[in-house]
Amino acid sequence: MPAYTPPLRDMQFVLHEVFNVADEFKAMPKHAEVDVDTINAVIDEAGKFAAEVTFPLNMSGDEEGCTLDKTTHEVTAPKGFKQAYEKFVEGGWPALSCDPEYGGQGLPFVLNQCLYEMLNSANQAWTMYPGLSHGAYEALHAYGTDEQKKTYLGKLTSGEWTGTMCLTEPHCGTDLGMLRTKAEPQADGTYRITGNKIFISAGEHDMAPNIVHLVLARLPDAPKGSKGISLFAVPKYHVKADGSLGERNPIFCSGLEHKMGIHGNATAQIVIEGAIGTMVGEPNKGLQAMFVMMNAARLGVGNQSLGLTEVAFQNALAYAKDRIQMRSLSGVKAKDKEADPIIVHPDVRKMLLTAKAFAEGGRALQIFCTLLLDKEHNHPDEKVRKESGELVALLTPIVKAFITDNGHIATNACMQVFGGHGFIKESGMEQFVRDNRINMIYEGTNTVQSLDLLGRKVLANNGASLRKFGKLVAKLVEEEGVNEKMAEFINPIAGLGDQFTKFTTEIGFKGLQNPDEVGAAAVDYLRVAGHFVFGYLFARMAQVALREIAAGNTDPFYVAKLQTARFYFAKLFPETAALMRTARAGAKSLMDTDAALA
Amino acid sequence: MPAYTPPLRDMQFVLHEVFNVADEFKAMPKHAEVDVDTINAVIDEAGKFAAEVTFPLNMSGDEEGCTLDKTTHEVTAPKGFKQAYEKFVEGGWPALSCDPEYGGQGLPFVLNQCLYEMLNSANQAWTMYPGLSHGAYEALHAYGTDEQKKTYLGKLTSGEWTGTMCLTEPHCGTDLGMLRTKAEPQADGTYRITGNKIFISAGEHDMAPNIVHLVLARLPDAPKGSKGISLFAVPKYHVKADGSLGERNPIFCSGLEHKMGIHGNATAQIVIEGAIGTMVGEPNKGLQAMFVMMNAARLGVGNQSLGLTEVAFQNALAYAKDRIQMRSLSGVKAKDKEADPIIVHPDVRKMLLTAKAFAEGGRALQIFCTLLLDKEHNHPDEKVRKESGELVALLTPIVKAFITDNGHIATNACMQVFGGHGFIKESGMEQFVRDNRINMIYEGTNTVQSLDLLGRKVLANNGASLRKFGKLVAKLVEEEGVNEKMAEFINPIAGLGDQFTKFTTEIGFKGLQNPDEVGAAAVDYLRVAGHFVFGYLFARMAQVALREIAAGNTDPFYVAKLQTARFYFAKLFPETAALMRTARAGAKSLMDTDAALA
Repeated sequence: MPAYTPPLRDMQFVLHEVFNVADEFKAMPKHAEVDVDTINAVIDEAGKFAAEVTFPLNMSGDEEGCTLDKTTHEVTAPKGFKQAYEKFVEGGWPALSCDPEYGGQGLPFVLNQCLYEMLNSANQAWTMYPGLSHGAYEALHAYGTDEQKKTYLGKLTSGEWTGTMCLTEPHCGTDLGMLRTKAEPQADGTYRITGNKIFISAGEHDMAPNIVHLVLARLPDAPKGSKGISLFAVPKYHVKADGSLGERNPIFCSGLEHKMGIHGNATAQIVIEGAIGTMVGEPNKGLQAMFVMMNAARLGVGNQSLGLTEVAFQNALAYAKDRIQMRSLSGVKAKDKEADPIIVHPDVRKMLLTAKAFAEGGRALQIFCTLLLDKEHNHPDEKVRKESGELVALLTPIVKAFITDNGHIATNACMQVFGGHGFIKESGMEQFVRDNRINMIYEGTNTVQSLDLLGRKVLANNGASLRKFGKLVAKLVEEEGVNEKMAEFINPIAGLGDQFTKFTTEIGFKGLQNPDEVGAAAVDYLRVAGHFVFGYLFARMAQVALREIAAGNTDPFYVAKLQTARFYFAKLFPETAALMRTARAGAKSLMDTDAALA
Repeated sequence: MPAYTPPLRDMQFVLHEVFNVADEFKAMPKHAEVDVDTINAVIDEAGKFAAEVTFPLNMSGDEEGCTLDKTTHEVTAPKGFKQAYEKFVEGGWPALSCDPEYGGQGLPFVLNQCLYEMLNSANQAWTMYPGLSHGAYEALHAYGTDEQKKTYLGKLTSGEWTGTMCLTEPHCGTDLGMLRTKAEPQADGTYRITGNKIFISAGEHDMAPNIVHLVLARLPDAPKGSKGISLFAVPKYHVKADGSLGERNPIFCSGLEHKMGIHGNATAQIVIEGAIGTMVGEPNKGLQAMFVMMNAARLGVGNQSLGLTEVAFQNALAYAKDRIQMRSLSGVKAKDKEADPIIVHPDVRKMLLTAKAFAEGGRALQIFCTLLLDKEHNHPDEKVRKESGELVALLTPIVKAFITDNGHIATNACMQVFGGHGFIKESGMEQFVRDNRINMIYEGTNTVQSLDLLGRKVLANNGASLRKFGKLVAKLVEEEGVNEKMAEFINPIAGLGDQFTKFTTEIGFKGLQNPDEVGAAAVDYLRVAGHFVFGYLFARMAQVALREIAAGNTDPFYVAKLQTARFYFAKLFPETAALMRTARAGAKSLMDTDAALA
């Protein structure tokens, strides 16, 4: 059975020592009171909740899955899920970073990020129930009418009700322009919605008395394609003027998907049979509102893989120290034992360190990005807000795709450390692999993320956002360029930085002649960009560690951090060499293949 | 629901056009009659069996799994498995490459290889039942007494009975030196065996009336470690002198593992409670006999992933042509449709071509290697036999690890082509990923394979075997070095060949000073070696294709082959650049990490 310990020390290191978040919050009137002690108290309690309440339900939830009663259309979540959710609501966790106007605690997104990392480590399937609600909250908060806000935001903030995103239909996922669900305007200003949705996460369950579905649909006179899509709030139960529940709205779960992983989350097929909803935002501009949810969801998906990477690492490390098998190639290490613990073997260490570096790099990136989100929303200086927003937009596809791909590599490596025992369900390791697998797919496949990054976030603005990130790197290189001890961390990113600009320009030029060149390079490009960002963050973490050690701090944490950073630059970062080579090989070998793909 | 078409055309291409196996067989008295027509007839029938009999049971077997009756210790395989196995036996398939002395058909291993590729595509879990028998057959054939051969080989050849390899115990897998199962000599020359085994594939089932377990155990006076292990044949039911079944031997299934994949195969916990067995081979030399099984099994595991790569590719290709979503970046392609089929997108093509190249490269390697095995066993020239054996030994860890790692990449890529639908069980794609995952682990993890390759097969004989393979490459480079059309295929392998020798020498020198350097480089080394071999094979395939096209052959198959080879060299082969870089980064960043891995 796996174990989980909240990684509070590393979280605190990134929050306080690398990014000095409390200082940053001082500059934001809304968060000026959020000091180090408050932050530490919150993440400490959050960690306890994850480790003690939802983690014990992870394997049982996977085994049991969700059950649909085909007569009532009601879904029962795995045993214990409902009770854990009640505790979550009682603890006030859904409200953590919500707007105080609707009962929220108004704390920074960074804290919510840390809470969710640990919830995802503990139980991704469970965490998706409150996680999806948050997307609905954000969309309604940004685009809802006063009436909608009054009706829904309080309940979503408290967690009393949950929310969903009803986007996908059987024939369209990435290409929402093709969606067919219809919304007929009614005399009273509401809409009657009819259609079929699939893959609706947390789409139906028994954990809350009401579910607020945010549904994409077309008005009768809507233009074709993605410019004719509107967004609607469609509650499972109508809400009376006094806030109590009224009649059942005909938006039903007609089936549950049988999936590779996240069995504890109900992935629902939804039939909408003339359900009544209200429009969110403007007619035909539903995708705009949807993207508020989607961008939050994309950061959230990266966070899911961060959580799984961390918990997989912890368990593989414990196993590698405990399991004895063979002797070290460089001589017996555990003389009193029949064999050495497998952690003596270089490749076992490589697998462990890969997961550790991906967890620590991912955590730094998630916190870096969410702090920018806090600045985007709450910094008093408009220029800071704008620039932070640009960087968040640039980093979002990297967070989503790079961290989830890394999660795939890491969870598989950690499972591999267990040998045959990793393939057995009892070890818990194969569940991490299965659960992580969806993260590379949903909320826009990782290919879609790479096109978003290269096409929209980099080339469309001639690299302006990328240059902003490049300035941060340049600043660090400048600061530390003469520090010999930092050379091993600075040289690789300075080197890649030079190449990366040239690489980007090259693809841009090729793309002007043939847009398929962008599509051919995008996935490799995103991974290079991911390493550029990770390299920067590892250099910053090494900078702090070196400073502490130089100041006489003997906490082995700092030595560990340097070792992980060295490993990262020696064994993971050099992947960029091959990626740039294959990207440069261009589109021809992909597109001139009609015979091969006949 | 997935589909499967036996890849007969590509198999025939590799067999007849690349390796001219029928000509090779003419030189082997035992196989001199095996001509092209015979070969084609056999693989055609084999393909029909796989596609029509076992493939339809693949998903249902996964869903149902195996059932253990805890009272009788009997295991029931999924519905239809027994009937399919009966048909397999009726068809004479188990006997295909077995010794005619025991009722076998005596056909080349190459044919058995092709049969099993298709069986693995169709249903890996089912295929492991006859597959495991073959290992037992080989060990008994090589080391059994006349009595043992008489008792068992006929039944294993006909497939009437099946066999297992009982190696692993709860505390030891890789490190068999630690095993504890005991064998007490009895007055009548038999042994009474007691112990616990785990992870025994096909360890108990209802598909055959008897199971011949080959069990590793220790004699009472055995030396410690791996030099004190003996091998025993322990039948489920004793065999009377007339060949009929006698009493039940107390070797029981005490539990079945719940696994990530291969649910249709019974992975048994086996309790041996004083079961009677006979020794196979000499006392304390059981590992020698075991390695006969193991080497065959390692080639077989590579073949499992080859099969899964092929079937995953076929289904992803069909989906990519059918599923419409978004428009091509370079302009609308399917004007009559609401969107373009996703095969227009460069990255979708990249995922498909990755799987295709890994399937075609893997098929060429498996057939290349199995033809060498035929030569090793049946060539009249002793020098050819010896050299072929050396090459098989060199290639075995590459076949096992490179093809299974590629299978992981390929099945995941093919699943990704399906987007969200790939995560749903109904598509069948996620089963290919789960089934493939064990192939990277069992019969020696891929790390163990890499140590076998670099330590034992390369460095231990100062690169002698590797140089033999290098000569084949050099010969091709010499033949085609002036052929301009071949330059794009020859240059990369000539270049890598030069670097690879230097690379090997470097690691050898570093390893002399610190053996952990070998362990640190081995996994990267194996992947470079794998590409060196694939590069050679793709160049040979391209050579044939170019020759046919030059001769006016208009079969689009040859154009397709060239396109796949070009893709391989442009997008997959360059991985070697990063692998050599990370291998060269050495052991330090892995081993100086005690704080990081505390």
